[in-house]
Amino acid sequence: MKIGILGYGNLGKGVECAVKSNSDMELSCVFTRRDPSSVKLLTAGVPVYNVADVEKYKNNVDVLIICGGSATDLPKQTPEYAKYFNVIDSFDTHARIPEHFANVYKAAKTANHTALISCGWDPGMFSLARLYANCILPNGSDYTFWGKGVSQGHSDAIRRVPGVKNGKQYTIPMQSALDAVRAGKNPELSTRQKHTRECYVVAEEGADKAKIEKEIKEMPNYFADYDTTVHFISEEELLHNHSGIPHGGFVFRSGKTGWNNEYNNVIEYSLKLDSNPAFTSSVLAAFARAVYRMNKEGQTGCKTVFDVAPAYLSPLSGDEIRAHLL
Amino acid sequence: MKIGILGYGNLGKGVECAVKSNSDMELSCVFTRRDPSSVKLLTAGVPVYNVADVEKYKNNVDVLIICGGSATDLPKQTPEYAKYFNVIDSFDTHARIPEHFANVYKAAKTANHTALISCGWDPGMFSLARLYANCILPNGSDYTFWGKGVSQGHSDAIRRVPGVKNGKQYTIPMQSALDAVRAGKNPELSTRQKHTRECYVVAEEGADKAKIEKEIKEMPNYFADYDTTVHFISEEELLHNHSGIPHGGFVFRSGKTGWNNEYNNVIEYSLKLDSNPAFTSSVLAAFARAVYRMNKEGQTGCKTVFDVAPAYLSPLSGDEIRAHLL
Repeated sequence: MKIGILGYGNLGKGVECAVKSNSDMELSCVFTRRDPSSVKLLTAGVPVYNVADVEKYKNNVDVLIICGGSATDLPKQTPEYAKYFNVIDSFDTHARIPEHFANVYKAAKTANHTALISCGWDPGMFSLARLYANCILPNGSDYTFWGKGVSQGHSDAIRRVPGVKNGKQYTIPMQSALDAVRAGKNPELSTRQKHTRECYVVAEEGADKAKIEKEIKEMPNYFADYDTTVHFISEEELLHNHSGIPHGGFVFRSGKTGWNNEYNNVIEYSLKLDSNPAFTSSVLAAFARAVYRMNKEGQTGCKTVFDVAPAYLSPLSGDEIRAHLL
Repeated sequence: MKIGILGYGNLGKGVECAVKSNSDMELSCVFTRRDPSSVKLLTAGVPVYNVADVEKYKNNVDVLIICGGSATDLPKQTPEYAKYFNVIDSFDTHARIPEHFANVYKAAKTANHTALISCGWDPGMFSLARLYANCILPNGSDYTFWGKGVSQGHSDAIRRVPGVKNGKQYTIPMQSALDAVRAGKNPELSTRQKHTRECYVVAEEGADKAKIEKEIKEMPNYFADYDTTVHFISEEELLHNHSGIPHGGFVFRSGKTGWNNEYNNVIEYSLKLDSNPAFTSSVLAAFARAVYRMNKEGQTGCKTVFDVAPAYLSPLSGDEIRAHLL
């Protein structure tokens, strides 16, 4: 199956690595908004084209994996490129999913293409964990925790504070909250009781560190509702110890079974990822296989992870997965 | 949707409870091999029929949930009743799944019915955890641990030892093994390093306890390859403290991403269940909903959990699950 990548940042690079790990896939080409000659791929012999020429290559790609940002790129890109390709994206602005779905559905359906949106780990694998667990335990409570991991949005917010040269923010789930949920205690948890935030900040020379710390800790939406710790460190230390993009998290469903709800049950799904974009793109690659197959079967329009029978994700046959994985 | 139950033991009773928790389902009837007048249901007003009359009621049931045992019941029952009904079972003899699938497929396909086999938590939810994780991380290792929970087979084995009046066996995963896997260390684990076995035994009066303990600990296949602990207790204590059927377990996939496999990732799925049969039957009920819908769409033959798009499991609409669970 021939994979195309649109956008060659962390996520696009991750898709390139994931394609290498899947022997039934090959990377056909990469589309970029930059000057193609300035983009150097890891894979030898794969062409880079300007995104303006995308239509020319529509027969070279079975599934186009769109690696743009959710804020402004994907709402335009996914419906646009669904005209020419089967497409998949990792759109993660939860509140705007219904609108994005409708737009992509229309474009893909009209062109007889198959599109899959909001694929990754949250939304994506965490959504699947929530759906399965809700269907099995209709009588219960959901808990989602994120981390320990780097939040790009919160790191950006730190870097916008006057006097801050660079910074990185870790979201950390509270161990006491995880323990209570895992024990089936069904706690009511405030925002502050679920996560803490830890900031590593490089201050500009002569900056007022107390003022920076106060400004971060009191920032509404981002930090004010959390117990936030601010560590001032050198730029060298930041680059040396905090240049990775790890992430992960936990999805729980705690629910009851039995005639009188006498039995407790806890379902837990968790991820611990050294690289958030490398994992997200591995999920994208697996679902690209499903998109390809569903399109071959005439299942067109827009899909989400909820619409994909798991067998479509595997390179193995039905006989093989029943024999070895069931 | 009208649910029928075939076999009213722990699992059948669990299905009855699960149906009560799903407002789009109603229990239509229960079939038994016993004298129907001797079977007392929890649900008021639901008839119990003898299984010999099953064909008479084929229009009263949308999905028949077959609650027999895997050793001798299900290999006969599921293909037989797939002639008259859409059916679902929890067949769990892993090695015989291909053969069972083929038999059920033939019967269901011929009758234009939809059947789903091997549904529960292992096989079932654990199989799904393995499949998803293998597709996302093709380069990695799988680990499955069971427990802490009661193994019916091992409890039966204890009770067959001469001098044993009653007994219960708990399978317990080794914390050191869980920790190593969770930390991404990819350990090679022997049988002994993965689980321990704890036995609670009521000896007959005057029995030789040392001999019983030796016989249990040296029993091939069941206990010889494990560190086994035997506790002798009174019958009262057994009934009071060990009458439940809790179970659970852990599925891990530990795998690499990145161009040079430089990133570790650990995916973990776990269950902690107060009642094994009540949870298994809750999974059966959710998948019965999918069977009903797939049959309405003309998707006939035999399926497994791998063939079911998750959206089919939910009573909510596509719009609702995208808005609230994605």
